[in-house]
Amino acid sequence: MTGDRVLSYAQARGVAASLMEAMGTPAPAAGMVADSLAGANLRGHDSHGLLRLPWYRQFITDGHAIPDAQPVVVHRSAAAAVVDGRHGWGQLAGRLAVETAAELARAHGVAVVTARNCNHVGRLGEFAETLAEQGLVSILWCNADPAVAPFGGRQRMLGTDPFAAGIPAGAGSPAIIVDFATAAVAEGKLRLDRLAKRPVQAGVIQDAEGRPSTDPEDFYRGGALLPFGLHKGFGLAVIIELLGGALSGNHVGFLPSYQWGNGLVMIAIAPNHLVDRSSFLDEIATASEMLRASPPAPGVDRVRLPGDVESETMAQRERDGIPISGAAWQQLVELAEELEVVLPG
Amino acid sequence: MTGDRVLSYAQARGVAASLMEAMGTPAPAAGMVADSLAGANLRGHDSHGLLRLPWYRQFITDGHAIPDAQPVVVHRSAAAAVVDGRHGWGQLAGRLAVETAAELARAHGVAVVTARNCNHVGRLGEFAETLAEQGLVSILWCNADPAVAPFGGRQRMLGTDPFAAGIPAGAGSPAIIVDFATAAVAEGKLRLDRLAKRPVQAGVIQDAEGRPSTDPEDFYRGGALLPFGLHKGFGLAVIIELLGGALSGNHVGFLPSYQWGNGLVMIAIAPNHLVDRSSFLDEIATASEMLRASPPAPGVDRVRLPGDVESETMAQRERDGIPISGAAWQQLVELAEELEVVLPG
Repeated sequence: MTGDRVLSYAQARGVAASLMEAMGTPAPAAGMVADSLAGANLRGHDSHGLLRLPWYRQFITDGHAIPDAQPVVVHRSAAAAVVDGRHGWGQLAGRLAVETAAELARAHGVAVVTARNCNHVGRLGEFAETLAEQGLVSILWCNADPAVAPFGGRQRMLGTDPFAAGIPAGAGSPAIIVDFATAAVAEGKLRLDRLAKRPVQAGVIQDAEGRPSTDPEDFYRGGALLPFGLHKGFGLAVIIELLGGALSGNHVGFLPSYQWGNGLVMIAIAPNHLVDRSSFLDEIATASEMLRASPPAPGVDRVRLPGDVESETMAQRERDGIPISGAAWQQLVELAEELEVVLPG
Repeated sequence: MTGDRVLSYAQARGVAASLMEAMGTPAPAAGMVADSLAGANLRGHDSHGLLRLPWYRQFITDGHAIPDAQPVVVHRSAAAAVVDGRHGWGQLAGRLAVETAAELARAHGVAVVTARNCNHVGRLGEFAETLAEQGLVSILWCNADPAVAPFGGRQRMLGTDPFAAGIPAGAGSPAIIVDFATAAVAEGKLRLDRLAKRPVQAGVIQDAEGRPSTDPEDFYRGGALLPFGLHKGFGLAVIIELLGGALSGNHVGFLPSYQWGNGLVMIAIAPNHLVDRSSFLDEIATASEMLRASPPAPGVDRVRLPGDVESETMAQRERDGIPISGAAWQQLVELAEELEVVLPG
């Protein structure tokens, strides 16, 4: 086991791009996937960062991923479109969905774009950020393979099914970027608790009999994650799972027709089709800053809006670098050896 | 104080229609508002039922509501439109938004319609139900006056800000209808706890200093409701408050420009613009029934999907009638006396 590493963003991106290219992905596409993975690390979402590279290699081995496949828009109808990832990398399908949704939303005021056959689409917040940079509001989600029990249920049925949204703001105020799993926690956190042999927090998992548990092993013995926010979070997760599967053609995760990976739904809205564009941006900025300046609860330094923690982490990691644990680095070293890639350091 | 009453749906609707007409609302519009209010009672959402009539009377007295105003579509741009309720009843503005969204979604695949100046729009789930009956997927929400503290905050900033969504299903399976407040509970429940002098559940309110509380009086002494689902529910509530206010022109609830009442955002999607319509409806039906048939957790009789409790209550109340508490009935009797309306029974 090697020790912990600290990489600059450029180094992290370079590692990811080299490994993606060595897996058979052409340079421009490998660079895009590397941007997404290193970008997730930079914002503190290490579960969606370079950690994923050995899994992506496994997707190829298992026949899920075709490393040089390019996504295409297979269907267009007015303000609606469907992207087929053709079993390539989801980050590429997601980018094509963003470009298509932006074009259609500018023309129609609103657009809906779905994507299928795209493995793991990565961090949804990235797509919301890109749309917000273009002045567009977005709401997006994807379904996934079963890991979460229904509210009141015992069996894994729903995916961890993330929800994201973005709102652009004017006057130099940062965009609001929401991005969360509708599972109480991401499965990656259970893995960390399991490795550390520590209990998980209450209300997060149940055992195979549907009884509440704090032992992470219970999840891996046939238990399930729970939805966040009781019946309300479950309601949101049902919408995400059913529409993510059925509107994309990737299908619901627990059906035999399920196509593996994420079925993506992306809605983009051009505010100028409804209200004055600059008044909208000013109102979001003013309201955001009033929320941030509102008095904090005892023991809290200040009120943070969705996306603020990521911005703070990004500023800190741009300065100090991205920490990579010894265990994660060791996996990258092994992958690099297999692919005959030379890593920095 | 009079005793509790049980009304048939027709009686409840008749009471509401008579009172709305006596307030100055023309018969057809009064009937529509009565449908919405009695329909909420029928589905078990008494907080959105006849209980609201004395408040609506107060809206007129306070100069918020114009009882004979008719909503209009004031702006259209491709798949986007804005409804102005012209300070009439929100149920009418909501219906016009539904009709407009359905027409635009059929033409463009997706539509976004907002509404402003419409007082209280009523139960959002009703609009999702109507769109689902027409085979349309919907996502909708509205902002409201400040009652909820930000996650980590002390002061009331956000409204109780409901979120709703609807998915039509084929093969005789009921539509999935999600409808929940992003506040941990509705304010109506606090009122009931306060009247009964009982503590509220933990994690629902805080006092004026931002400390957790279970004393409902603390909310009325300047405390605040909390968002459901910690930072995740807060993320959803921020999206609802900011977009409900800024995309509708009703403005964010804590800004000086706030126009009172609900700012509504409604997105409708016509699935046939993305995938085969009948395959979509079949997939939703199959997945829904598999979720309902999945094994329940210990102590739970069966897994219910969003909307199922409302369907069960509706069947029971169609048979047994709608219970109205003595206190609520007394308020209706007083309103009827003031308006010179004769109530049944």
